[in-house]
Amino acid sequence: MNADQLFKKIQKKKSFLCVGLDTDPQKIPVNLFDTDDPVFEFNKKIVDATNDLVIAYKPNLAFYEAFGPDGLKSLEKTVDYIKLNYPDIFLIADAKRGDIGNTAKLYARAFYQSLEFDAITLSPYMGEDSVKPFLSFKDKWVIILALTSNKGSEDFQIIKTSLSEKRLFEVILEKCAGWGNINNTMFVVGATHPKLLEDIRKIVPDHFLLVPGIGEQGGDLDEICKLGLNDRCGMIVNTSRSVIFADSSVNFYIAARAQAQVIQVQMEKILQNRRLI
Amino acid sequence: MNADQLFKKIQKKKSFLCVGLDTDPQKIPVNLFDTDDPVFEFNKKIVDATNDLVIAYKPNLAFYEAFGPDGLKSLEKTVDYIKLNYPDIFLIADAKRGDIGNTAKLYARAFYQSLEFDAITLSPYMGEDSVKPFLSFKDKWVIILALTSNKGSEDFQIIKTSLSEKRLFEVILEKCAGWGNINNTMFVVGATHPKLLEDIRKIVPDHFLLVPGIGEQGGDLDEICKLGLNDRCGMIVNTSRSVIFADSSVNFYIAARAQAQVIQVQMEKILQNRRLI
Repeated sequence: MNADQLFKKIQKKKSFLCVGLDTDPQKIPVNLFDTDDPVFEFNKKIVDATNDLVIAYKPNLAFYEAFGPDGLKSLEKTVDYIKLNYPDIFLIADAKRGDIGNTAKLYARAFYQSLEFDAITLSPYMGEDSVKPFLSFKDKWVIILALTSNKGSEDFQIIKTSLSEKRLFEVILEKCAGWGNINNTMFVVGATHPKLLEDIRKIVPDHFLLVPGIGEQGGDLDEICKLGLNDRCGMIVNTSRSVIFADSSVNFYIAARAQAQVIQVQMEKILQNRRLI
Repeated sequence: MNADQLFKKIQKKKSFLCVGLDTDPQKIPVNLFDTDDPVFEFNKKIVDATNDLVIAYKPNLAFYEAFGPDGLKSLEKTVDYIKLNYPDIFLIADAKRGDIGNTAKLYARAFYQSLEFDAITLSPYMGEDSVKPFLSFKDKWVIILALTSNKGSEDFQIIKTSLSEKRLFEVILEKCAGWGNINNTMFVVGATHPKLLEDIRKIVPDHFLLVPGIGEQGGDLDEICKLGLNDRCGMIVNTSRSVIFADSSVNFYIAARAQAQVIQVQMEKILQNRRLI
């Protein structure tokens, strides 16, 4: 899938919403524990209830790896289920990996081939040889952490460098953009830094951005769209807990759909106002 | 295990060697494929043959996660085997994780409690709230990437910042050292940057450093020890492929031991010359 195809999907679904499948077993409705794989059953119900409203799902790997081999099985089943039943979904492995050459290649094969993810999030700290191995897979994407949504993003990411006083995240955007292209590289930019989106769009006007941080983390959709959208939308906006844990009853998936729909309707209006649909 | 206890182990074993269990199934002797779990059998033989010469083992998680649930089972079995049979070994999860609050907590529990690792490597890019959750576990360590051994380390890690012209890795050392203390925090410093060790020791004179990059990556043990050792040794030096894949025959573990012993003997001399034993 290239950037044009992604934009067409956004136009068709009138949505640039990604739902994070951060499926914490402690927050799953108790009735699901009667099943063999409660995490998978939870994800399946969320996906069945919301797939027409979203263009992407993003499991955070920590929530699966933390439970060892069983956790990874839940992840595999979730990925297979989505790919089989909803092949138009863009599937992001939120792994935040970053390792050198041969190790990076192993991760790339694991996430792109064994698991059929479309994209993986990467930490840029180790530089080019930790990113490049992921860029040789056709139709697959890397999503590089530039400016994250958490408080700790202020510790190093916004430090001014001596390179024309650019901040670290700007140096990273500039350099990483040169390793790939707009059809295989996105950047993570947290919704909690809306004012910096103007500076970011000066460096990467045409790239897609993955924007976490609306919902529980306090980012505002209208505000980030003002400066972040480009002429191919150029944004995938993620929310996790506020959708998937909207309700903890047996009907959790109905509340999740309602919550996703509120955001989708807001996105449709924004896309119309910007004449993108 | 605190820094003093680690130093005592180093003195007892006359070694500060860590062997990386980067067990690539493609490089395992074919005879092991007659067993149920070739990766575990390989690790078991390497550990049985080398444990008296090393103070630490460091599985790189990529080599296990890349093979899904089965890979994670091999890792679990390896960790359990080492903890049961060689409880004095310092066990490092080379995971290079970095994620926010609740996700970091999940990873911490997975690596420190479910898997009983003593330490985990972390990427600092997301800042304090991606590291702090790991620091609340008694007797456990974080090992933060400061200056890695790969070529890509030159892309961002040595960029000069506007903070008194300090380079990024220096800013990271300074800031991260303040989050924990010398009994729960180490830093990764690649052996491929021996000259920078002098600058690093000015910032973190008392911290332990995990130093990868000798062997196949070209770092020189004597050279890094000149500037890197402190009065409690303060270094764990890792090598992976040059030990575990020293030979590909059925007797691979004998060659691995021989290779580890060459390094241990060299380390013993260095420790004697520095009057650390």
